[in-house]
Amino acid sequence: MEVPVRLSGFVPPLCTPFTAGGDVDTGSLRRLVEHLLAGGASALFALGTSGEAAHLTAGQRRTVLRTVVEAADGRVPVLAGVIDMTAPRVLEHARDAAEAGADVLVATAPFYTGVHPGETAEHYRRIRAGSGLPLLAYDIPSCVHSKLPGDVLLSLAAEGTLAGLKDSSGDTNALRRLLVERRRRGLESAFSVLTGSELTVDAALLMGADGVVAGLGNVDPAGYARVYRQARAGRWDAAVAEQDRLARLFALVEAGKGVSWTASAIGGFKTALRLLGVIDCAATAPSLGALGEEGERAVRELLVEAGLL
Amino acid sequence: MEVPVRLSGFVPPLCTPFTAGGDVDTGSLRRLVEHLLAGGASALFALGTSGEAAHLTAGQRRTVLRTVVEAADGRVPVLAGVIDMTAPRVLEHARDAAEAGADVLVATAPFYTGVHPGETAEHYRRIRAGSGLPLLAYDIPSCVHSKLPGDVLLSLAAEGTLAGLKDSSGDTNALRRLLVERRRRGLESAFSVLTGSELTVDAALLMGADGVVAGLGNVDPAGYARVYRQARAGRWDAAVAEQDRLARLFALVEAGKGVSWTASAIGGFKTALRLLGVIDCAATAPSLGALGEEGERAVRELLVEAGLL
Amino acid sequence: MEVPVRLSGFVPPLCTPFTAGGDVDTGSLRRLVEHLLAGGASALFALGTSGEAAHLTAGQRRTVLRTVVEAADGRVPVLAGVIDMTAPRVLEHARDAAEAGADVLVATAPFYTGVHPGETAEHYRRIRAGSGLPLLAYDIPSCVHSKLPGDVLLSLAAEGTLAGLKDSSGDTNALRRLLVERRRRGLESAFSVLTGSELTVDAALLMGADGVVAGLGNVDPAGYARVYRQARAGRWDAAVAEQDRLARLFALVEAGKGVSWTASAIGGFKTALRLLGVIDCAATAPSLGALGEEGERAVRELLVEAGLL
Amino acid sequence: MEVPVRLSGFVPPLCTPFTAGGDVDTGSLRRLVEHLLAGGASALFALGTSGEAAHLTAGQRRTVLRTVVEAADGRVPVLAGVIDMTAPRVLEHARDAAEAGADVLVATAPFYTGVHPGETAEHYRRIRAGSGLPLLAYDIPSCVHSKLPGDVLLSLAAEGTLAGLKDSSGDTNALRRLLVERRRRGLESAFSVLTGSELTVDAALLMGADGVVAGLGNVDPAGYARVYRQARAGRWDAAVAEQDRLARLFALVEAGKGVSWTASAIGGFKTALRLLGVIDCAATAPSLGALGEEGERAVRELLVEAGLL
Repeated sequence: MEVPVRLSGFVPPLCTPFTAGGDVDTGSLRRLVEHLLAGGASALFALGTSGEAAHLTAGQRRTVLRTVVEAADGRVPVLAGVIDMTAPRVLEHARDAAEAGADVLVATAPFYTGVHPGETAEHYRRIRAGSGLPLLAYDIPSCVHSKLPGDVLLSLAAEGTLAGLKDSSGDTNALRRLLVERRRRGLESAFSVLTGSELTVDAALLMGADGVVAGLGNVDPAGYARVYRQARAGRWDAAVAEQDRLARLFALVEAGKGVSWTASAIGGFKTALRLLGVIDCAATAPSLGALGEEGERAVRELLVEAGLL
Repeated sequence: MEVPVRLSGFVPPLCTPFTAGGDVDTGSLRRLVEHLLAGGASALFALGTSGEAAHLTAGQRRTVLRTVVEAADGRVPVLAGVIDMTAPRVLEHARDAAEAGADVLVATAPFYTGVHPGETAEHYRRIRAGSGLPLLAYDIPSCVHSKLPGDVLLSLAAEGTLAGLKDSSGDTNALRRLLVERRRRGLESAFSVLTGSELTVDAALLMGADGVVAGLGNVDPAGYARVYRQARAGRWDAAVAEQDRLARLFALVEAGKGVSWTASAIGGFKTALRLLGVIDCAATAPSLGALGEEGERAVRELLVEAGLL
Repeated sequence: MEVPVRLSGFVPPLCTPFTAGGDVDTGSLRRLVEHLLAGGASALFALGTSGEAAHLTAGQRRTVLRTVVEAADGRVPVLAGVIDMTAPRVLEHARDAAEAGADVLVATAPFYTGVHPGETAEHYRRIRAGSGLPLLAYDIPSCVHSKLPGDVLLSLAAEGTLAGLKDSSGDTNALRRLLVERRRRGLESAFSVLTGSELTVDAALLMGADGVVAGLGNVDPAGYARVYRQARAGRWDAAVAEQDRLARLFALVEAGKGVSWTASAIGGFKTALRLLGVIDCAATAPSLGALGEEGERAVRELLVEAGLL
Repeated sequence: MEVPVRLSGFVPPLCTPFTAGGDVDTGSLRRLVEHLLAGGASALFALGTSGEAAHLTAGQRRTVLRTVVEAADGRVPVLAGVIDMTAPRVLEHARDAAEAGADVLVATAPFYTGVHPGETAEHYRRIRAGSGLPLLAYDIPSCVHSKLPGDVLLSLAAEGTLAGLKDSSGDTNALRRLLVERRRRGLESAFSVLTGSELTVDAALLMGADGVVAGLGNVDPAGYARVYRQARAGRWDAAVAEQDRLARLFALVEAGKGVSWTASAIGGFKTALRLLGVIDCAATAPSLGALGEEGERAVRELLVEAGLL
């Protein structure tokens, strides 16, 4: 029940390529894994929000995870999102993830249901106790509509329930306080902090975060790996310049018009991946709106501007 | 693919009784069905928010639904909640529900993921097309964090996708506009509107709603059936007096302190049901906080005040 | 310091007509007063949200209030909005309102600053103590971003701080609980409850509200006066039919495209008033966007459909 | 109409000391100005949110501003908050500020009323045109409940309406995109960006912000001046260490229990200033709750821990 390694570095949250018919495209997914490892990923995070996990059935999730674990082939750890409303449902995904060979689980706060700090703590304890794997908390208020409180996270770290955090809250003030308090409590080696804010990775690393989970890293993994390396080396000007380039590229998440932000952002990533030749088809989940020709043109221009195409 | 009957009247959203060990307590659930039918329910809604569907695994949901269908034994229609994040996942619950013998499905807007009106329409079309059952939209912004737009609902009604609405939005202004527009478009017989606002059932019926889905109706089904009958008979003073009594009883949803609203509200309902001898155990889902002795005392006093104990 | 009369009936929140140059158009305002009194208003509410009070300087507010008081000439009471962020600032408006001859003050919760129930209570106590006039609470979360808690309101009523409530929260469940609790505490004659939800006036009166403050009542005062009279007479079918007609007319608040809801709603009211010949110019406050020709056409069609033009 | 100097460095948003009787304590305010200038402030920002401007009458605001301008005596520029709901009201404060000798105005988005990007632009144009002073936008969604869009800000900068931004949104992702886009459009010298996020000043400076407006800087101005100098010198480790210390000290904003966040945060700052001997009385605005003895003890301990007492 020990966390195998302290997580750090660039950990991309993999998109889930689909065929035109809406099935998981395992061939494209394998190519995506190679693309990310070639780019310098230090671990792979499957079935996160960028992976459209909310749109995948349990069977499709198993397919994704088995494909990623097999393709990774032990070269880096594989983190598995186990996104569902409450602990009993999360635990079913956790069992599937363990069977598929995942190394670490990543679970959000409860959603759809009401939340309260004590109940959120109990939620994580049940997930941790019911699965044999290290557990990261996934703080993503834009999806679950509550924020994980820093003191709850650190208490859960101290008791061995949580091995770390993927912080997609965008709340940099809360992140700062968490990092300062983590050190005060001597939890730096026990509790990894990964930022999910792909526009401010340099800042998060400056403040003491251990690594980065960036959806845009699907498109330009080498860019994010460089930000990480430059920051670790204290070459802050270079890290900032690279991050600035990526911040400009991030505009591809707005390529979709008249669609949800999910459709636009993930549609933007997938369109870029298709244009780069990594995946075969840019389709997102069935109910999501498409980018259309104009959106694709915008993505192409941004890739050219970023020097990727 | 026709809606069998136009839904109306009092349709309780059944609580899901648990054993002390956390399993679905089918014996208590059967007694709850009898309690509700004796009270005058015109249909039964299983696996809604009050049924803690968010906390139930797919297997537990099947158990609940089979038990309710069997206990109802054709006396009234059974509506099945198919609460999940997106259409592909909802459809798996829909198949289970059809197999278990449910008569109608009840599905929320997408959640966790981004939403957009066009994508929400597509979401419902896919659920309708992929299942053989009439479909109600379940508008519950407090859980899914978006509001179903009235014009989308009525367009989906006009095209035969939706057979009705359970409106738990609490947005009475939007309800009014929907009811007025429903009549303008001649959709009154095609699209049932059930209010889920248990404190304003008289008002909703005055405005033209067809029926009521009230969590508090688990505790006092006869009360809600009376509100409905008095309103239908135009005895508004009597309907209001009954609803006022129920509004006071509703305070039992606040019996829990230091717990989530879900824990407090459903804990309040279940504690009342146990005190009334309907179910054996008041436990809510595993991660939820308990009401404690003080909470139980508050519930007991409210039951006495309401003349139920 | 006594409340002169218990407020009830139809109390329109007056629009503030402007000249094309952006000054308060006192001639049009006087005609509006006559229009509303002829329509059956039982009191007049100046300087509310519909009166664009947020856009008026202290001097303009004084002009509006003096004009309305003079035009009303004692025929009905005049309520004065004293909308500002905190008690010290509200009190300056309160002094102006008293000087201008207002009969009742209407004050929101604090805004811009943080709020807490105890501080909100203190806020109202200071306003009441520092002015010589009866005080209504104005519950409008869409503008001030907090909801006035029912128990705070009733405690302030019991101690003599508040004489009533204008409820523009749209939260019908909270309104029901307030009305039930008001009776339990024997505060019905001490604390008037006026609904500001112009689409559900029949429902609010059914539930026990005393009157209605409806922005749309600027356009069709006679309609709202009829809803009130029919409801008071227990002719619920007639009240509902009238309210349904008004609910349809309410679509004029959506006449503006590419503008804020304030610009669209108040622009819709003012355009209707100009088309009806009541005011000279439909201009809203300087920074607000205009309805344009298309918007004006939509308003005209709705007036025709409602039988007003 | 030119901006006199490009704003940068540490710009404290001054607290407004009160006497026990609730008047502006001009003697304490003058001592606060000296405290801040001695600490290294490069400009002074009066009448911001930390200055309880929402709680001050127009007369009190004039007193504050005249006192600060006089005390500053030309040593540094003085920025004046002109916080009010809409342009016509803001302009009255702007005239007072100009008369009092302020150098720059700082204005929020409209609030209480609805907002729309085009109307927000018009709002700033009217304020700029109606006053003779350079204008900063004040982005503070926690108070005004809308976020200033980056493209609107930069367009207003390009046309000469805005000279800069005080960003208190806490939205670091939006800040990054704004800074990157500012450079793309060649607006770096025309448009100053000051962060109001006192926990992440090092990060904001790394990303390219020009300066910092930090409420906590009232208490420890020298600390913030050091963060700024170390960052400008590229000594990032030192900047981070200093910011970490200040992040810990920031806990004094939570010293109040059972009060609003405004009462707790500003009460925390003022209590610290009193304990440090800078101001005479820690009272906040009349309706706000007090910290009490326990709160004062917590503040004292944090000052000791930070090496300030």
